[in-house]
Amino acid sequence: MIEKYAGLIKTELNAIWPQLPEPRSLYEPIFYTLEAGGKRMRPVLLLATCDFYGGNASDAAKAACGIELFHNFTLLHDDIMDNADLRRGRQTVFKRNGLNTAILSGDLMMIKVYQLLAQMPAHLLGDVLGKFNDMAVKVCEGQQIDAEFEQRNNVSIDEYLLMIKYKTAVLPAAAMQIGAICGGAPETEAQKFYDFGIQIGTAFQIKDDWLDVFGNPEETGKVRAGDIVAGKKSLPILLTLSCLNEKDQHDFLEILHGSSEDKVDRILDIMNDLKISQMTEQWAEKYFKMALQSLDSVIGDDAKKNFFREFADSLMVRKN
Amino acid sequence: MIEKYAGLIKTELNAIWPQLPEPRSLYEPIFYTLEAGGKRMRPVLLLATCDFYGGNASDAAKAACGIELFHNFTLLHDDIMDNADLRRGRQTVFKRNGLNTAILSGDLMMIKVYQLLAQMPAHLLGDVLGKFNDMAVKVCEGQQIDAEFEQRNNVSIDEYLLMIKYKTAVLPAAAMQIGAICGGAPETEAQKFYDFGIQIGTAFQIKDDWLDVFGNPEETGKVRAGDIVAGKKSLPILLTLSCLNEKDQHDFLEILHGSSEDKVDRILDIMNDLKISQMTEQWAEKYFKMALQSLDSVIGDDAKKNFFREFADSLMVRKN
Repeated sequence: MIEKYAGLIKTELNAIWPQLPEPRSLYEPIFYTLEAGGKRMRPVLLLATCDFYGGNASDAAKAACGIELFHNFTLLHDDIMDNADLRRGRQTVFKRNGLNTAILSGDLMMIKVYQLLAQMPAHLLGDVLGKFNDMAVKVCEGQQIDAEFEQRNNVSIDEYLLMIKYKTAVLPAAAMQIGAICGGAPETEAQKFYDFGIQIGTAFQIKDDWLDVFGNPEETGKVRAGDIVAGKKSLPILLTLSCLNEKDQHDFLEILHGSSEDKVDRILDIMNDLKISQMTEQWAEKYFKMALQSLDSVIGDDAKKNFFREFADSLMVRKN
Repeated sequence: MIEKYAGLIKTELNAIWPQLPEPRSLYEPIFYTLEAGGKRMRPVLLLATCDFYGGNASDAAKAACGIELFHNFTLLHDDIMDNADLRRGRQTVFKRNGLNTAILSGDLMMIKVYQLLAQMPAHLLGDVLGKFNDMAVKVCEGQQIDAEFEQRNNVSIDEYLLMIKYKTAVLPAAAMQIGAICGGAPETEAQKFYDFGIQIGTAFQIKDDWLDVFGNPEETGKVRAGDIVAGKKSLPILLTLSCLNEKDQHDFLEILHGSSEDKVDRILDIMNDLKISQMTEQWAEKYFKMALQSLDSVIGDDAKKNFFREFADSLMVRKN
């Protein structure tokens, strides 16, 4: 199934620009970005949801392609904001082609998203565009809220959950909502897939936070506890703070924002005492279960939901 | 007339966000940008063209507002790329709020443009979206082509004209084309307004180039011959190069790219000898006349075209 959808997405993406257009210096970074691949998770979800309702893949293909392009646009601009060197194991466009080209190639990708959406069947266009735009606004807001967190020491768990909802979860959620619309689902049913996406996207991000702090660097392929090293307010940090009194919070933040050599070990010791690993997993599990409930509530062939169940499972058991 | 349209645009722009939304740090720079005003030339042209065909301003208002927001989005990102300190006499968002916020607020503005367009009457949406996207792609391409010119010494006049067409002229052109569509004009008539926009936009930019080099700094309010100081390949420079043999071109470029104290005077002396001021004005005049011809070819009440004639005149006689 996934292979079939991924194949269709690849064909659609390749068809956007049959050749490298002029000015090449503007388009080449977009080709470079798309070449790097990635799992194409979001467009696959969109096509699968359309399929769930017996929809025509060709009606949904432009939107699927647009969702993937939008995701890649956000990565391109995020890499500037994060001053990132690497993306998918290769140099970021920002480092490779410079600031100006990275901004402008990203802008062009976003416009291209809307060119793709504009090619959708007219009876779907208004609705899909509305859902897509609502999502895109939230993604920008989530990115900014995340940036603001860096300046703050009093981020609540609710605020954090809202941030990851916007920054991460609305994209797969809107992908499935739009897929459902393309498949002819009624608004309320499309909303259930949206909820499923929000919940599984949130569980995914919490699992990501867990892997960063408690995962095996040999399996994740990332720096050990990179979020702690960077002093990032991920869920394990916020859960720890929620368990400490004011004085201990102060001491904990001092270690976190300091640069002592044994910083990671000291933070992990405190987390182990408080069983933060288990608490973080419980939060992920909570959202995972909510997601499955949302999926159960969808009206339709239960056997066809297995694709989404397996997808959800794959996010939770992953080690990287 | 202009006042009526400008008033409608102001109302529409103010209605986008009745209050400053959260996160404020993301939206405040957008408010700051829109507050600075500007002449609202493009949305005025859009509404005027809709009006020319007896269209309903309310059908065109969202598109007019979107065009203005898009224009401001391009300025916001351009100011990053140009490392600009000032815009409309005030600090740029880039300098005031930093790189990351400037990128993200710009991205959000662009998404908001599409939220506005998505609110258009369904029978207009597909067509307007198509024209808008074509324009937006060209604006990005024009910006990149302009950046590439900085690295090149062999820019032809044709290449230059294509660049200013994309970077500057397609925006007013698409504004009028979209206005015509909103007013119910047939495709071929909307195209005539598009052509008028391209030609008058090109004349406008050439006039801008002329003012920079030959205008009175006391009237323009800008640095004397700023383009020469910056070594920018504007039309007067390209025309000069086209009049020189290979050796003299080399010498001229050496002065232009150098930093001698009397650089501007030496360049202006060469230009005066070659009558570059008059040549530049002739190019502007040529496009101005083409624009008037396009306008003449539009089917419709000739008296109602006076608004566009006066607009075109105002661009040509301006001193800043």
